[in-house]
Amino acid sequence: MSELILPIEILAEQFRRLPGVGKKTAVKYAFKIIDMPQDMADEFVAAILNARTGVVRCSKCHNYSEGELCPICESNERDSSVICVVEDPKSIMAFERAGSYTGLYHVLGGVISPIKGIGPDKLHISELLKRVKEGEVAEVIIATNPTLEGETTAMYISGLLKEYGVKISRLAYGIPAGGDLEYTDELTLSRAIEGRRELN
Amino acid sequence: MSELILPIEILAEQFRRLPGVGKKTAVKYAFKIIDMPQDMADEFVAAILNARTGVVRCSKCHNYSEGELCPICESNERDSSVICVVEDPKSIMAFERAGSYTGLYHVLGGVISPIKGIGPDKLHISELLKRVKEGEVAEVIIATNPTLEGETTAMYISGLLKEYGVKISRLAYGIPAGGDLEYTDELTLSRAIEGRRELN
Repeated sequence: MSELILPIEILAEQFRRLPGVGKKTAVKYAFKIIDMPQDMADEFVAAILNARTGVVRCSKCHNYSEGELCPICESNERDSSVICVVEDPKSIMAFERAGSYTGLYHVLGGVISPIKGIGPDKLHISELLKRVKEGEVAEVIIATNPTLEGETTAMYISGLLKEYGVKISRLAYGIPAGGDLEYTDELTLSRAIEGRRELN
Repeated sequence: MSELILPIEILAEQFRRLPGVGKKTAVKYAFKIIDMPQDMADEFVAAILNARTGVVRCSKCHNYSEGELCPICESNERDSSVICVVEDPKSIMAFERAGSYTGLYHVLGGVISPIKGIGPDKLHISELLKRVKEGEVAEVIIATNPTLEGETTAMYISGLLKEYGVKISRLAYGIPAGGDLEYTDELTLSRAIEGRRELN
């Protein structure tokens, strides 16, 4: 990017930190920032600063929150007897978009990964156990991602939860809605057959 | 985006102002900003503010610049007898990346567009005429984009430049390098035939 003057190059480098942003896109974004009217640029920076200071973690489930508790933990309409355990708040957004889950959540803040040096102590697992111990929890759905690390974490947590006598479940594996069997990978197909349900 | 808390939603809306950024991408960017370490976020904001205050326009050619003159106008190695007229600084970056042009530039700051209410007076055309009148300019290459508005602007400027007795040229039209004739549009093909060159 030698044809750029330094402040533009530095700004473009910052934009490259955003997920999926390459060189060209980063430069495009930098140009846009430089060319926008002053009030728009002020709003842009204010939104970043405001999100950085205004967004904290829910003290109960570690979801993004504006206050002590997130809107989901605060709501009276959620079923507090079910906790869905997820890796990060993005998974919560996905479930909320789907709209069919009415229970509470618990964000782990990642998954167990020996390679990345993330042990169980770096995740919000003890807080989950505390919630299960103290609360009127009947079921814990472990909804980590279907990756090797997600599976390991799910197994680890379910092992810890056993002594609390709660129902422990895992998301169903199978073919995605709208998917085409011809293009579905072998592992997914095998799991779809293993997990088949009887039609009544 | 109702499943988002307000500061995240506001930040995502700001990211949607960047070119080509849709809802999902904007939310991804917002999450990244919220999750990054404090020093990284500080650098991000500092880069924006620094680019906003540190990048001005070159007093001669209206390219992006850190000082009174941009690096190109300031250089002793550029051929000051040729001026390449472009719509915006992004075109300069493209020429500089190509690396074969050694003259100077002049940024119009847009194109004549009656629909958008942009008349010749809103572009840096008088400054271009002044440069041609005062300097030792031998040739003006009009490199506006090959759009209807770009063409109109090129015609308008070439009309004004005629009385100064400089050579006026326009970029060559034709098939792009690596292009496939089968998929080249009719207008481009017609122009490639019109502009054909004799092989020696």
